[in-house]
Amino acid sequence: MNVLIVHAHPEPHSFSAAMCTTATDHLRAQGHQVRVSDLYAAGFNPVASAADFGQRQNPDHLVYALEQRHAHTNGTLAPDVRSELAKLLWCDLLILNFPIFWFSAPAMLKGWIDRVLVSGVVYGGKRFYDRGGLAGKRAMLSVTIGGQSHMFAPDGVHGPLDDMLKPLQQGTLGYTGLSVLPPFVAWHVPYISTEERTHILADYRSRLDQLDHLAPLAMPSLGDFDERLRPLAVR
Amino acid sequence: MNVLIVHAHPEPHSFSAAMCTTATDHLRAQGHQVRVSDLYAAGFNPVASAADFGQRQNPDHLVYALEQRHAHTNGTLAPDVRSELAKLLWCDLLILNFPIFWFSAPAMLKGWIDRVLVSGVVYGGKRFYDRGGLAGKRAMLSVTIGGQSHMFAPDGVHGPLDDMLKPLQQGTLGYTGLSVLPPFVAWHVPYISTEERTHILADYRSRLDQLDHLAPLAMPSLGDFDERLRPLAVR
Repeated sequence: MNVLIVHAHPEPHSFSAAMCTTATDHLRAQGHQVRVSDLYAAGFNPVASAADFGQRQNPDHLVYALEQRHAHTNGTLAPDVRSELAKLLWCDLLILNFPIFWFSAPAMLKGWIDRVLVSGVVYGGKRFYDRGGLAGKRAMLSVTIGGQSHMFAPDGVHGPLDDMLKPLQQGTLGYTGLSVLPPFVAWHVPYISTEERTHILADYRSRLDQLDHLAPLAMPSLGDFDERLRPLAVR
Repeated sequence: MNVLIVHAHPEPHSFSAAMCTTATDHLRAQGHQVRVSDLYAAGFNPVASAADFGQRQNPDHLVYALEQRHAHTNGTLAPDVRSELAKLLWCDLLILNFPIFWFSAPAMLKGWIDRVLVSGVVYGGKRFYDRGGLAGKRAMLSVTIGGQSHMFAPDGVHGPLDDMLKPLQQGTLGYTGLSVLPPFVAWHVPYISTEERTHILADYRSRLDQLDHLAPLAMPSLGDFDERLRPLAVR
């Protein structure tokens, strides 16, 4: 299995970094190929802009997704985007490894999503959800969070974490066709002991051993909608 | 009323930019004070990192929120963060104006959130939701989106837009205590006529005239939870 871990944390010695290293070592020990995109270490540029395109289809007015399609076809995508996209297309499993900032990904990782999930390759037209360009591959979030799990119970103060993660898990990963495994969540991270951290890393290794036995999250299926994306009548 | 519009679109002539200009002109014509943070034009840096802090509380290990609190207390926050935070504290109404990228904010705007919503000022400890640091102010999303509204119906392919926007509207704006007005959504923007765009801008002006008559979105109330944030028994 080819695994790409995209890691985004501003502190090189963070617990999130330890999770990234744990997954890398554990998966390699099982014979998998693992590549890591450490976005902070690479000084990745998260800003989607006109500078991402060499020769423009429309130099007067930027529609980002249209220029992505044009630049991909013509081989004029920015080199860092091309390099990350190649890793994405190479992998069988994508792990996004990051600390939850404001109930979602840090801007650094959001920018990787904005720039690397290139229109015309990973999605486009009617190619999304189960018809997305990355169908057949799997993905998983691997996150740290300051809150405790009871705050994300159905009656918890924030509501279920999966609801907060919907734009990422469904709107991004699922949208591109990826089969999304349940997230691995390290709770309460800034406040826990070294012993608890050790336990979490052991749990993470066990989780990584179970990937083939986990049911992916439910996603919409385009077969349930007509060509204008209206729900088909109940059959 | 003091209004801060935070705008983030990579194309200066986008419809999103027209919405920003429309709101600015319309609110000023009514006698309100309006300031605009055009993040792309300003070359705003969206990456939360150690570089945001002058003198560090812990130079060996970065915990971003803790350093925010320390730097705010000591006046050593990065100048761009301090300047944006001052505008945020000045305003009575915050409008986030942006194109939906991957069912959420572009990385540029997410980075404004990550860096400017400073711990110890806008939230911290038990100061969140209705006890958040920005309680008493209002906020609203003003967004463009490629999809059509029927795709976001309860039985639509993506589900309700408010569900996709939960981490932004509840997890970010509501979390800081802001009273969140319903979003203004311009649907199907890349595909519509000039006439339709004119109609949307007229609708937006009408919406801005109605702000005092709109019910804010429902948010959690900390009074419904105990000191460990467990739900209080049904009374």
